[in-house]
This record gives sequence, C-alpha cells and structure tokens, in this order.
Amino acid sequence: MIKKLLIANRGEIAVRIIRTCKEMGIKTVAIYSQADKESLHRYMADESICIGPNKISESYNNIDNIIYLAMKMKCDAIHPGFGFLSENSTFAKKCIENNITFIGPKYEQIDKMGDKSTARDTMIQANVPVVPGSKGIISNIKDAIETSKEIGYPVLVKASSGGGGKGMRVANDEEELVANFDIAKAEALSSFGNDEMYLEKYVKNPRHIEVQVFGDSFGNVVHFGDRDCSMQRRNQKVIEECRSPYLDEKTRNELYDAAVKATKSVDYIGAGTVEFIVDKDRNFYFIEMNTRIQVEHPISEMITGIDLIKLQILIASGEKIPYSQEDIKFNGHAIECRINAEDAFNDFRPCPGTIESIHVPGGLGVRFDSFVYGGYTIPPLYDSMIGKLICWANDREECINRMKRALDELIIEGVESNVEFQKKLMASEVFIKDEHHTKFIENEFMNK
Amino acid sequence: MIKKLLIANRGEIAVRIIRTCKEMGIKTVAIYSQADKESLHRYMADESICIGPNKISESYNNIDNIIYLAMKMKCDAIHPGFGFLSENSTFAKKCIENNITFIGPKYEQIDKMGDKSTARDTMIQANVPVVPGSKGIISNIKDAIETSKEIGYPVLVKASSGGGGKGMRVANDEEELVANFDIAKAEALSSFGNDEMYLEKYVKNPRHIEVQVFGDSFGNVVHFGDRDCSMQRRNQKVIEECRSPYLDEKTRNELYDAAVKATKSVDYIGAGTVEFIVDKDRNFYFIEMNTRIQVEHPISEMITGIDLIKLQILIASGEKIPYSQEDIKFNGHAIECRINAEDAFNDFRPCPGTIESIHVPGGLGVRFDSFVYGGYTIPPLYDSMIGKLICWANDREECINRMKRALDELIIEGVESNVEFQKKLMASEVFIKDEHHTKFIENEFMNK
Repeated sequence: MIKKLLIANRGEIAVRIIRTCKEMGIKTVAIYSQADKESLHRYMADESICIGPNKISESYNNIDNIIYLAMKMKCDAIHPGFGFLSENSTFAKKCIENNITFIGPKYEQIDKMGDKSTARDTMIQANVPVVPGSKGIISNIKDAIETSKEIGYPVLVKASSGGGGKGMRVANDEEELVANFDIAKAEALSSFGNDEMYLEKYVKNPRHIEVQVFGDSFGNVVHFGDRDCSMQRRNQKVIEECRSPYLDEKTRNELYDAAVKATKSVDYIGAGTVEFIVDKDRNFYFIEMNTRIQVEHPISEMITGIDLIKLQILIASGEKIPYSQEDIKFNGHAIECRINAEDAFNDFRPCPGTIESIHVPGGLGVRFDSFVYGGYTIPPLYDSMIGKLICWANDREECINRMKRALDELIIEGVESNVEFQKKLMASEVFIKDEHHTKFIENEFMNK
Repeated sequence: MIKKLLIANRGEIAVRIIRTCKEMGIKTVAIYSQADKESLHRYMADESICIGPNKISESYNNIDNIIYLAMKMKCDAIHPGFGFLSENSTFAKKCIENNITFIGPKYEQIDKMGDKSTARDTMIQANVPVVPGSKGIISNIKDAIETSKEIGYPVLVKASSGGGGKGMRVANDEEELVANFDIAKAEALSSFGNDEMYLEKYVKNPRHIEVQVFGDSFGNVVHFGDRDCSMQRRNQKVIEECRSPYLDEKTRNELYDAAVKATKSVDYIGAGTVEFIVDKDRNFYFIEMNTRIQVEHPISEMITGIDLIKLQILIASGEKIPYSQEDIKFNGHAIECRINAEDAFNDFRPCPGTIESIHVPGGLGVRFDSFVYGGYTIPPLYDSMIGKLICWANDREECINRMKRALDELIIEGVESNVEFQKKLMASEVFIKDEHHTKFIENEFMNK
C-alpha cells in the first residue's frame, strides 16, 4: 500500500487529493511554485517544497525536478491531478522507471488515447460509434475536399493532438474548408507541435455527455454513470450534472455499454472518462477519452457515495475494484457550478486578486471544494478557478432549487466572480427545461 | 401551502430553516433581539424585525410580541426551531387561535409529552418499555423511600417538568435518597416552577439512543432510523452518530417498533424524537419524547437524503408523508460534532467573542451547518454553539477518518472553541471501539 504520495499539481485538485490521503492515512508532499507559496494545498500537506519559479514549464510541468523531489522525499507514488502532467506519457513512464507509482493508467494507454486520431480508430475497431469522418490522418487539402464530399457538410477540421478548441474549425462548404484547413493546421502546429489533422462530420448544437469509467489490473471495468456537461462556453465546461436528464433509459444503457467496451478495448487501468456528443435524435458518438480524473468528478461521487480519488489510489496500489457494477447505485441528482474569478459580463476576463473574505454555503446536500481562504491572493498565472459548488438532492428540480439557494449564500468579496452569472444560468428556462446544448451560452444566452 | 413563514428562533437553526424555505419558495421573516442584530439569520431571511431587548423572556420567548408580528407581517406559519418556544403548548395554541400554522404537533400532544410523568404513564399503557419506577407522582419522602425499596437502589429522583439534568439526583441508598429528595424538589421548583417529582431505577452508564419519528394528520407514522447520542457531557450531547453501532438488528427493529407504537399512541403529528436509554444487555427503556426537531437531525438527513425541515413544513401544511416506511432507505453512516465557543480544557467555560476568521472544511461527505462568519461577534447571552460539523461516509470507520480530517480543516480564529477537544474524542480508542456511554466524558475521559 502507498505510504507517501507527492501531488504534482496545485490549487483545488491538490487540496482534494490531500483530503483523501488524510482519510486513508497516506502522508502527502505538496509542491508549489514561488507564486503559490500562500496556497492552501501547501499548508494542508504534511510536507511541502517549492518546485521552482512561476513558469509552468519550470514548476508544475518540470518532470525531472518533480521526479527528483519525489525520490528525495521518499514518496512511493505521484498523483498528477488534472491538467499539467496528468496526460503526459513521458512523465508516467519516468515515474515507473524510477519505481514510483503513477496514479493513472499505463503510459501506453495515455499515448493510445492522447492521439485523437488513433483513439478514433481504436474505437471504430471496438465497434463504438464515432462521428462519421476521415479514416486516419488527412495530410492535404485535396484529401480534405474529397473526404468532406463523402461524409457531407458541415464538417469539422480537427488537430490530432488537439484540445480546448485549438486547431479546430467548422466548414459549412468547400469554400470554407479551403479557407480554414491550413489555418487550423498552422494553429495545431504552434499549439501542440504537431499538425496532423483529421475530419469529422459537424454535429450542430449537440449535448456533451460523458461516462466515468474505472479499470483495474485484473481486467475488471465498471462505470459510475454519466455526466452531462452540455453547459459550456467556448468548449470550457461551466455547469455539469448527473445523471443526464437528456437520455432515455435505453440510450443510457447503450451509452454505458459503449463506454465499458471502449475501456476494455485498451485494457484500461485507473480512472478515465469516455466523452460523447449526443445529437437531437439521441444518437451518440465517441469524441475522446480522458485518461485522468476530471474536474467534475465530485458530482459522480455525490450520487454514488464513492470517493473516486480513493479508488484511483487503491487501483494504482494493485487492488481490485471493490465494487461490481451492481454495487454501484445511483442515488438522486447532482449539479456542479464552476466558480471562477472572472468578469462574466465583460467577456469573461479573468480577475485574479485578493479574496478579502469568503462565506461558504452549508446545509443538506451542499459541498464546496476549493483552495481559497479569506486573505488569499489568486495569482494571475494559472487558471481562474476559485472552487466548485456542488449540490445533491433527490431529484433535478430539488437540486436546481438547492443550487440557487447555495449560490445565494456564496459570498466572495475582493475579486469579481461568476456567481451572478451562474445564478442567471441556473434560473434560465432553457436550463430548467433541459433544452440547452454546448453552444447555448455563446450563441443564445449571451446574445439576449 | 404555506407562503410566508416567521422563524421564532435565532442562530444556526434559524439559518437551517431559512435554507429549506428558500428551496421551497416560501418567504421568510426573521426575528432578532438587539444583541443579534448582526446575526446571519437576520440577513438571510427575506425580511427581519427586531423583536425586543436581549432578555429571552422579552425577545425569543415573548409569545405575544411574536404572534403580533407574525400577523402584522402576514405570515401564515411559524417555525419555532428547537429550544425557546418549541415545546411551549401555550404558544402552539395561540398560533392556532390566530390562524397561524404552528410547525409542530398539536398543543395537546406537547402537553402530554412535556410532562415526563404523564408521558411515562402513556408509554406504559402503550406497552412501550420504561425504566422501572414510581407509578405517577411521588409527593413526599416517605413515599419515595417505599417506592425505592420496591424498585431497588440505585434510584434516580426526577422532576416531572425536568430537562437538561436539572431537578435530577442519583441515590445509591436510603441515606442518599433522604439527603437529596428535597434538594431536587427545590431545584425543580426554582427551575421549572413545578416541584412534582417521580422515581426511576438508575441505569448505570447507559447508552442514549433515540428514534426520529414523523406522524401526519392522516394517521401515518414512519421512523427515520435511530441516532446514538451517548457521547454526552452533563446530559448535553457532544457527538451524535447514526445509525447506532451498538444495536444488533433484532434490538434495532424492536426499538423502531416501540418508537412507532409510542408515536401512534398519541396520534402524533409532525416531527418527534423518542428517546431511550439502553443498558449493557441491550435492554432499552423509554425516557422521553421531544415534540420538535432536534439539534442532531442533520445526521438522519445524511443517511436518508431527506430534508426533515421540509417534511415538517409539508406535514404542517396538511400533506401526507410522501414516503412509506420502505421508501426510507438508510445509506452509510453519519456523525455530528457540536462545535462550541468554549474552553474544553477549562471546565468548558463559554467563550463568546469575535470570530476573526473561519475556514470551513469541504470535500465529499462534509457538511457544516452554522450561522457565523468572519467578523461576527458571538453574544454572551445565549448558547455557545458555533456550528455543527457533520460527516457522512459509507461506513463508521471511513466516517471517523473523514471527521478527523474535517476537524483538522476547521480553523476558527478569535475565540476559543472545542475543536481540539472533539479531535481528541474522535481519536479515542473508546469511541473508535464503540465502548463509550453517557458518563464517559465526565467520569473517564476528563480524568485521564
């Protein structure tokens, strides 16, 4: 069993991991950049060490320094959290080479799923539905035009190494394809150092629904239900809920079967999320698999009662998943609102600064996962997340009412936050009636 | 349905009730004494009014003022919370007389259960086990000596109107009985204005286990499981957990049957708690029924997922209990630690004062119900409760580990609190092994 764990991350997810380690009796080592020396994760860990200057490449992404420190501090494991090195197969490999347990899948699995085009091919072979598109890489505009004719416009030009909307363009016709293909390719090269592109049919205004899966080293795979993350802004999730109110039971079960099949097809070990888009007719298509814990994992914890970080650690320690699929019961409904230091009514401009005071909501079914405290200064260097407000209730209606009430109680003084924006979303008829989609915020809500 | 509700209370329970009202769309009116003008319940309610000066009799117990205000503010209901007027039948009656819904049982039921000696006789008639004792009131020392011989020493001399340990004395033999009877009687008179006394066999070092019940006006009665409140100090609960780890399933079911029988025997309407003591051989005896919501109700909410304040309001509105007994599922384990502004290592001296800052714990299964905020001054006039730290987990062991972790995260600056004391209790072998009893803290733990 793991005795001492280094957390190769910062902020909220670092705090989240420390909480579970404390409950499991595992000692923790926090790393922090110079700008993060007042960060809560640093104080909560048993030991903490400055990993380097503020620049991510010299601190939270500095593989050699992190491995060196983990060995020096006699850590037997590293948890990468999400973002930073969590999907970096080189890092996962170096951990293993230095006899440190990497809390995540094998590096080969990260590679297989990290390349979107390879992942797509893997899914096609496993009979998991994918959006109709190119077979493999499209190397030039001539191939792109030909393939687009086959699958029909509109099409989506995507970077094979892409993420977060970069290296991605919609083309409604051949003219737009010609105009955008090389731009997307150039953007992919500058963002990811790789300009391999592929094509997909563009599904307009889809829902984003993902399945939380876990595999262990004994070949067991279980799912923890789905999460509906359709409330997004520029491909960034804003509100997540589970389970999705959009699916009928038949589609839901087919989705779970597909996610488990996808996971088994790569002999996956650890926590993963199989992401799908769902069109108006409830057809679902695999888009990608994230080989790490997700920001929105707490809502799955709320409806199952199971600590998913604990499960990650148990599996990485070589244990079997202690639940059969039937043991995992889904109870009630959960919603997460991401609370960011940003000015939602001024193009979502990040608003770092000092939190003068914060009042956290309480009561039945309310959870606030954060890393800030009164007097803490959010540095302008990293993301703008203040915390995640999570509500659980017996059904969706009660959960929305609880979230509205909890948002009213959440008072953050000193920095701008998106709390008022979240209140407006939570009160919107479209969300209440479950009629939103991934483009709702930018194309409809913000234009009102 | 209730549209506007006055909360005839203060502090944490007032905040708790406002939360549920907000979720139900019910407008709220808070009352506050002059000393409470900075209290959170006042700011959270839709409207708030100063009810009078600091003295309880002139503010929170001022029946006429409260009824007058409720009518003036066009409230159709009053929630009394716990303490203050919650078990005052005169108040309940006056509400009804003025066409205001009292969120609680009928005043006749409050009377029947409020008098401990009558309640005991009612339970005997309903075949609910009671501690062997006197049949009705013991009016003089001669009767007391005779009855004590019959039931056997040690005996407990108790005031019929008693509560909180006042007017209560243990007598191990006739000499102690003679010495203590009149003292207890005088104490009862001065504390409760009533010196009617009765006798019970004294059960040494018992467990305190109670059953949460609800009745509606259609004759339905259901229970929400038991709570083990054996960790007490001078009859004040310190830690509560549910369900009790002390009971085998057979005894547990008998206890539930007895509690439901007791509740049905008085055609009870609303939330109530049937309290029992349990001896070493798992014999249980009725001690009293509280005709109100209890401080520790959140742990029952955590294992059932049901908002008990909401249920109180629904029942008072004339609705049926929307659950059959089979619908109420018990999931996992929950523990509550009462967090008080007191110096536990200095005879639990209350420590009112200004909370400079407070850091509230987060994460899976952690709930903090409070009414304080950074900068709030706890007045020295009322109780010393800062809040209730509640943890839920899949089993007792995980729950204790989570509570230890959450207590570590709870940081209160500016006033003394019992957080360190609660940490010591939570880490004590006796609690972990479930070998404590109601006298453990004062007779064993504090003597170490």
